[in-house]
Amino acid sequence: MRRYILTITCPDRVGIVAAVTGLIAARDGSVLQAAQHGDLDSGRFFLRIEIVADSLPDGFGPMELAEAFEPVAAEFDMRWHLSDTDVPKRVVLFTSKEDHCLADLLYRWRAGELECEVPCVISNHEDLRSLVEWHGIPFRWVPVGTEPAAKAAAFEEMQRMLDEERADVVVLARYMQILPPSFCAGREGRIINIHHSFLPSFAGARPYHQAFERGVKLIGATCHYVTAELDEGPIIEQDTRRIDHGDTVEELRRVGRDVERTVLARGLRWHLEDRILLNGHKTVVFP
Amino acid sequence: MRRYILTITCPDRVGIVAAVTGLIAARDGSVLQAAQHGDLDSGRFFLRIEIVADSLPDGFGPMELAEAFEPVAAEFDMRWHLSDTDVPKRVVLFTSKEDHCLADLLYRWRAGELECEVPCVISNHEDLRSLVEWHGIPFRWVPVGTEPAAKAAAFEEMQRMLDEERADVVVLARYMQILPPSFCAGREGRIINIHHSFLPSFAGARPYHQAFERGVKLIGATCHYVTAELDEGPIIEQDTRRIDHGDTVEELRRVGRDVERTVLARGLRWHLEDRILLNGHKTVVFP
Amino acid sequence: MRRYILTITCPDRVGIVAAVTGLIAARDGSVLQAAQHGDLDSGRFFLRIEIVADSLPDGFGPMELAEAFEPVAAEFDMRWHLSDTDVPKRVVLFTSKEDHCLADLLYRWRAGELECEVPCVISNHEDLRSLVEWHGIPFRWVPVGTEPAAKAAAFEEMQRMLDEERADVVVLARYMQILPPSFCAGREGRIINIHHSFLPSFAGARPYHQAFERGVKLIGATCHYVTAELDEGPIIEQDTRRIDHGDTVEELRRVGRDVERTVLARGLRWHLEDRILLNGHKTVVFP
Amino acid sequence: MRRYILTITCPDRVGIVAAVTGLIAARDGSVLQAAQHGDLDSGRFFLRIEIVADSLPDGFGPMELAEAFEPVAAEFDMRWHLSDTDVPKRVVLFTSKEDHCLADLLYRWRAGELECEVPCVISNHEDLRSLVEWHGIPFRWVPVGTEPAAKAAAFEEMQRMLDEERADVVVLARYMQILPPSFCAGREGRIINIHHSFLPSFAGARPYHQAFERGVKLIGATCHYVTAELDEGPIIEQDTRRIDHGDTVEELRRVGRDVERTVLARGLRWHLEDRILLNGHKTVVFP
Repeated sequence: MRRYILTITCPDRVGIVAAVTGLIAARDGSVLQAAQHGDLDSGRFFLRIEIVADSLPDGFGPMELAEAFEPVAAEFDMRWHLSDTDVPKRVVLFTSKEDHCLADLLYRWRAGELECEVPCVISNHEDLRSLVEWHGIPFRWVPVGTEPAAKAAAFEEMQRMLDEERADVVVLARYMQILPPSFCAGREGRIINIHHSFLPSFAGARPYHQAFERGVKLIGATCHYVTAELDEGPIIEQDTRRIDHGDTVEELRRVGRDVERTVLARGLRWHLEDRILLNGHKTVVFP
Repeated sequence: MRRYILTITCPDRVGIVAAVTGLIAARDGSVLQAAQHGDLDSGRFFLRIEIVADSLPDGFGPMELAEAFEPVAAEFDMRWHLSDTDVPKRVVLFTSKEDHCLADLLYRWRAGELECEVPCVISNHEDLRSLVEWHGIPFRWVPVGTEPAAKAAAFEEMQRMLDEERADVVVLARYMQILPPSFCAGREGRIINIHHSFLPSFAGARPYHQAFERGVKLIGATCHYVTAELDEGPIIEQDTRRIDHGDTVEELRRVGRDVERTVLARGLRWHLEDRILLNGHKTVVFP
Repeated sequence: MRRYILTITCPDRVGIVAAVTGLIAARDGSVLQAAQHGDLDSGRFFLRIEIVADSLPDGFGPMELAEAFEPVAAEFDMRWHLSDTDVPKRVVLFTSKEDHCLADLLYRWRAGELECEVPCVISNHEDLRSLVEWHGIPFRWVPVGTEPAAKAAAFEEMQRMLDEERADVVVLARYMQILPPSFCAGREGRIINIHHSFLPSFAGARPYHQAFERGVKLIGATCHYVTAELDEGPIIEQDTRRIDHGDTVEELRRVGRDVERTVLARGLRWHLEDRILLNGHKTVVFP
Repeated sequence: MRRYILTITCPDRVGIVAAVTGLIAARDGSVLQAAQHGDLDSGRFFLRIEIVADSLPDGFGPMELAEAFEPVAAEFDMRWHLSDTDVPKRVVLFTSKEDHCLADLLYRWRAGELECEVPCVISNHEDLRSLVEWHGIPFRWVPVGTEPAAKAAAFEEMQRMLDEERADVVVLARYMQILPPSFCAGREGRIINIHHSFLPSFAGARPYHQAFERGVKLIGATCHYVTAELDEGPIIEQDTRRIDHGDTVEELRRVGRDVERTVLARGLRWHLEDRILLNGHKTVVFP
């Protein structure tokens, strides 16, 4: 069923929902889901509404809806976004050598759990070419040198690829390179990473080793938007799994793979369905 | 902060939220939380709205709000309920000999986690008198005979107590008597029970023995509204805990006590905050 | 690291562990892991020991260990089994059209999480051929007719395949045919199934529909050994996931797929590592 | 059923279990539970054995068992401990004003879930006197001044109380004072604390505020042994609970109270049953 998804952020005040739902009801629009959050801390209001496309009048498509919505948006000083489920987002996956997250995302995409297009997978290694190509997706090998100049050139090339493919969102599926700030610029809330620890614990390198050393009884994973500050971006989703004294670092990795892929898949699905709204350095998630 | 909580159920159609929020916005009412659900199966719509009392005009209290709301309710054929957080619900707890659920609810009540009044605790045994009275709550001992006539008389007495105490809701905190249908009549969605299994598994007597015999790897508990059919009422909340081959029935009971009390407390809190709406023999829960 | 895994079941009495570990220590054998369980209900004792192969004297291999062990086994009336991690178990996967369990097992096998050989995948449909063959595993299509004779012939053919491939264990990865008793005979504790409900709830057909109808708040999956009685075999592993009133049957299926594949993978791994011992119609699992 | 619980730590080598179980079997001792762990990292071995007291010969009590065990202990360079379930540990609870952990521990003690004696509860505030005394336990009010001298005097007084009461273990049930090093000295592995975060995240003060600020999606609690370094002691147990963007700090506290008390109760029960062995700054837990 085709739906328009409207997400809104604005200063909280009286009448926002009445205005938005009134506008939709006036066009006989049928609301399938709606969720809202008034943030007492930031004083901002967050709204997500799914409208059944066919319930609106003939010829009243996303453009007309957006136009009709403009005055309301202006009145309430809204930042807003309108998605059309008939226009799936274009997701470019970045990967390196470890395939558990990539394989899981490709599986879910193939199974119809992730409504998106995957124009290509980009990797700094060739290892996962066969897996990607079996799914009928182009594999782009972009080695990233260690020299600053080579590195910059590589990221420029990837930047071009993203532009060419009109990528809406980048997913770092265990991509083992740090993105340069210039690459992140302009992609706020549009690069998703999976970190293999329960942040803020064990940020940085080798989190499973850190967890093993500290003797924690649960390990976790964190899906977050990437910002210029490493491992500091807005958290989208987290989860944990129980381990015990008998587990080696290798076993933490095995258990961790499961939680990483689950958490990343959940985060990406929410992003694709416009269920995540940025609230400063935090997120509002309407699952 | 004083709030009015409006819960609504009606046939799903265009304009419900717009009408309700429009009415509130017209009085400058500030909405703190709102949640909705359109049930594709039953074709019914469910809405819960928390309104900040002080945001409404002076002299516009719950009575005035209800009056203003009547025409909208009629138009959309709504069943609805308006609560005022300044008028806490009156909860009568029923118990027998096992105190884990009772002690937990009393603790949470004392800690302010359950916003309600507890006019009395009723029990068919005297064992838990001291626990109850330490909390400053009257303890009413109503033995339930085994003879039909004695039993009927006991339940009539309890019926009178509930009327006297103007009880809004009855909680069976491991009360080991089956309620007669006459007692349940007229209390639809107002008697909460905790069953010590993950229903529909192990309905009936001695669920931990049944679980042990079957060799399940998780045990659970179910909080549900009581109906005339034993263990068949609408489920409010459930949860499970891991066990293993080494656990005896006694250990299942110990693990089970924790999940029982957690699940019952969660269910009661949601009920007190008008977060549960009946949808036939199922529930809609806005947590 | 090569290990010998010894699993033992016998009537419980004094001295079992002393006898077994004494025998191993006398050959300088190093024990990597050991776990035991005395079942008060059945009066039986269960033991699992991992011995580092290289710690035993030169020329003292599995045959010699078994021979040395015979007198102890006889003394204590043991049923026992000795595995050699250098001789991985041979697993034949059965599947139909739904691929979530199959894809997950193949992924984990490829990733080295499941130490086994997969000589072939057998299916009554052709749909998953490409997935299987990409993994370099032969795909055997054995359609199962609806007529009794055709059905019997199909299962005889599969029986032959299992013999030919010297299969140690059969995994029903959402195989949508009921196995005839003759097929199960002689394979006690060697056919693993995944049922898409938290048994004993919702046994039989269409468990997600049943769960949806009942309005449960968690769904689950059960990995169990297959016996002649459908959905009644010894439970190996179970888990649950939270759902809510907004989830359709289709969404239960999506959430369920994740718990099914996790539970099946865990159960199979434990089986491959000889961590599961049968205790009547229940299991002892040393994870 | 009376049991002797033997816990052992020693350098890992061949024959430890054979020697220990051989010694027990030679006296006809019946082993109820046994668990072991060989730590590849530290090269140390950990063993816990529960022996049924009545299975040993008449007159062969804990003293005789210990004496018989001495030569084995010496041979393998063991640190070991022998407990008798007929001699419950003596637990002194420290508390301040928040009662959720204290109330939970007292409930479980009263319910027989924690096999121990509680000679007294010590607090720096008077608030929880009534709760403690209702349980028939002496309440000792020891205010802790802010001046170094007053503080030192207070801790000396508590030290004396612990000596007088022959305390085996101290539990800090949300005791809001930092223990001076002199107080911790000689109590290694015998002071249990609950920290209200998933350590190492949010160590230090106001962890729920820290969690709220960072926007994490789960909160947790950590039960650990106290060492001179704050929040750095060996972790015994941890758990997490899901929160969302709508939860205020106050709601994190409410959710957190549940996980705190659960985690602390589990940790204390394991300690009382000698299920926790120290492994440097980590723990081995045989649950």
